[in-house]
Amino acid sequence: MWTGNEVTSRLGIKLPIIQAGMAGGTTTPQLVAAVSQAGGLGTLGAGYMSGEQIRTAIRAIRELTDKPFGVNLFIPEEETGKTVPGEAVRQIMNETRRRLGIPEDPELGKVAEPFEEQMAAVLEERVPVFSFTFGLLDKRWMAACKQRGIVAIGTATTVREGVALEASGVDMVVAQGSEAGGHRGSFLPDSPDNLVGLMALVPQMADRLSIPVIAAGGIMDGRGIAAAFMLGAQAAQLGTAFLLTEESGAHRLHKQAVLSASDEATVLTTAFSGKAARGVTNEFMQLLAPYTEEIPAYPVQNALTRDIRQAASKQERSEFLSMWAGQAGALGRAMSAEELVRKLVEETEELLGKR
Amino acid sequence: MWTGNEVTSRLGIKLPIIQAGMAGGTTTPQLVAAVSQAGGLGTLGAGYMSGEQIRTAIRAIRELTDKPFGVNLFIPEEETGKTVPGEAVRQIMNETRRRLGIPEDPELGKVAEPFEEQMAAVLEERVPVFSFTFGLLDKRWMAACKQRGIVAIGTATTVREGVALEASGVDMVVAQGSEAGGHRGSFLPDSPDNLVGLMALVPQMADRLSIPVIAAGGIMDGRGIAAAFMLGAQAAQLGTAFLLTEESGAHRLHKQAVLSASDEATVLTTAFSGKAARGVTNEFMQLLAPYTEEIPAYPVQNALTRDIRQAASKQERSEFLSMWAGQAGALGRAMSAEELVRKLVEETEELLGKR
Repeated sequence: MWTGNEVTSRLGIKLPIIQAGMAGGTTTPQLVAAVSQAGGLGTLGAGYMSGEQIRTAIRAIRELTDKPFGVNLFIPEEETGKTVPGEAVRQIMNETRRRLGIPEDPELGKVAEPFEEQMAAVLEERVPVFSFTFGLLDKRWMAACKQRGIVAIGTATTVREGVALEASGVDMVVAQGSEAGGHRGSFLPDSPDNLVGLMALVPQMADRLSIPVIAAGGIMDGRGIAAAFMLGAQAAQLGTAFLLTEESGAHRLHKQAVLSASDEATVLTTAFSGKAARGVTNEFMQLLAPYTEEIPAYPVQNALTRDIRQAASKQERSEFLSMWAGQAGALGRAMSAEELVRKLVEETEELLGKR
Repeated sequence: MWTGNEVTSRLGIKLPIIQAGMAGGTTTPQLVAAVSQAGGLGTLGAGYMSGEQIRTAIRAIRELTDKPFGVNLFIPEEETGKTVPGEAVRQIMNETRRRLGIPEDPELGKVAEPFEEQMAAVLEERVPVFSFTFGLLDKRWMAACKQRGIVAIGTATTVREGVALEASGVDMVVAQGSEAGGHRGSFLPDSPDNLVGLMALVPQMADRLSIPVIAAGGIMDGRGIAAAFMLGAQAAQLGTAFLLTEESGAHRLHKQAVLSASDEATVLTTAFSGKAARGVTNEFMQLLAPYTEEIPAYPVQNALTRDIRQAASKQERSEFLSMWAGQAGALGRAMSAEELVRKLVEETEELLGKR
């Protein structure tokens, strides 16, 4: 019995399978709804969306399913880092813009969507599940979630972060292993090494926390889900696996690159956003790799590369796209989200027995 | 049925549990024999031993058990790296020597034991299992192993390395995840990222190889063993877990440090040997961290720090000891190796069913 645990009952879902809230257009309402409709928990990756866009997406999801779903946001950070790119970084970005035929040194628009407005949408829409990364949720927001019966899920890359999240009042913690694609959720300073592999992270987290642990990072099939449960997780969260589905809004070239990426083809980079994230290595990442010290901190660099990523997407230039992926992308399957969930269940049942 | 597979039958052991061949005195004949006697496979970590020392240890093991056991060696590397420390590194090491009251700039003795002599001992003693790290085994040695019925096991940190090892004729491959303590086994160049987490590494390796995969890295208890099997491994190799047993020759302070290390307390360092290895962070590692470019390559740096490590060990100065450990050391148990094996079996059976 790997279903029917604290996570499924608390979230009101049938299957302890969560589709990660990937920001940047990957998690279309169609994807979120399809996963929830299939019995898992779909999640809208709303980190880069305005309050209004979040509301629109939530309504679109609700048109498609009456099942529970989640919304994921980025906790805003105090701006302590570099806010202007070093000269080498500026030159590389301008050279990239020339190659894409877009204006150099564009006006820096809105750096990030106001968190207050994003959070207001989450609360007013009373989404069933709210998950977040990059930090702790402010007390007043946590209280507002509780008041509205919204389940709060935080993201931890170390046991220490998991402990801090539990103390802050979250209902569950996602344990993000070093294998995970996209942004690292790390938020506590002074960590000698926050790249803890899932195999080491989950059992230590499960031993220390009294709330449920959700395993994330490198999980692509039933083998990964079964392993996560063996380690002490009560649910598995999959990002890359769902990024590859038909409903996902990820770029065609991004999906192709992930499916043909080897286990060693992803690297951590700050090139696109100013914050460490794992993706399939490409030219833009390699060009900026020697100048990491000169890359502005998140969210500034994210805003600075927006025009590049948009143009690269339109022009189908994968050498300049951010192609987030975990370390096991090649195990992915291009199919509908519903089919994928069905496959995951079959595979997990074969290893762990019938639900 | 998690026992009785290709690994156990080929190795002639009852339990698919392998004690990793940790070099540097940790794997005493008592430890190796106790693990083998308990039904697993004990391994002598002979990387730093002379041919004669290996022979003596093998005989001591055979006095204690008639069960199969393994010997692990380091494949010698072409000396292409730095052979002399940079000035900053030299100064830090001499300052360390002053603090330990030992002579500065000592004569550099033998850099490494001759591989030919080590290998001759392995072959002449006809050890049941020969495992190796840091590369591929030369054809003539591979042929000599086959001729003598010695099972050959290589170590891979990426699928590409696993494929190369299979092509070279090994009988099994250890998939070493990024969680693993001690030296990284990586040997193929041009890898964007060879720090692949076990969760991502094992299923991809198992899919690509036709020989059995042994999972290693961060496995400390039955949860880790069960997870490894779910991922497609046919055996689990544990280093840190056995380092903490009573029979292990690891320093008392090393054991203490590992047991109280958090998941984020280990880091990869080249400070002690010139080759990346994971250990509990301490002052010596921190002092040299800013000067990694100036640290000589393995095995030169290993020879250069020998006096420091020996003095630190005698004087009980853990700030200068190499304290190798994986990312889940805190899950360790201080008990006899036999008790540990028994516990591992109990825990795994609870998750995977009776053998």
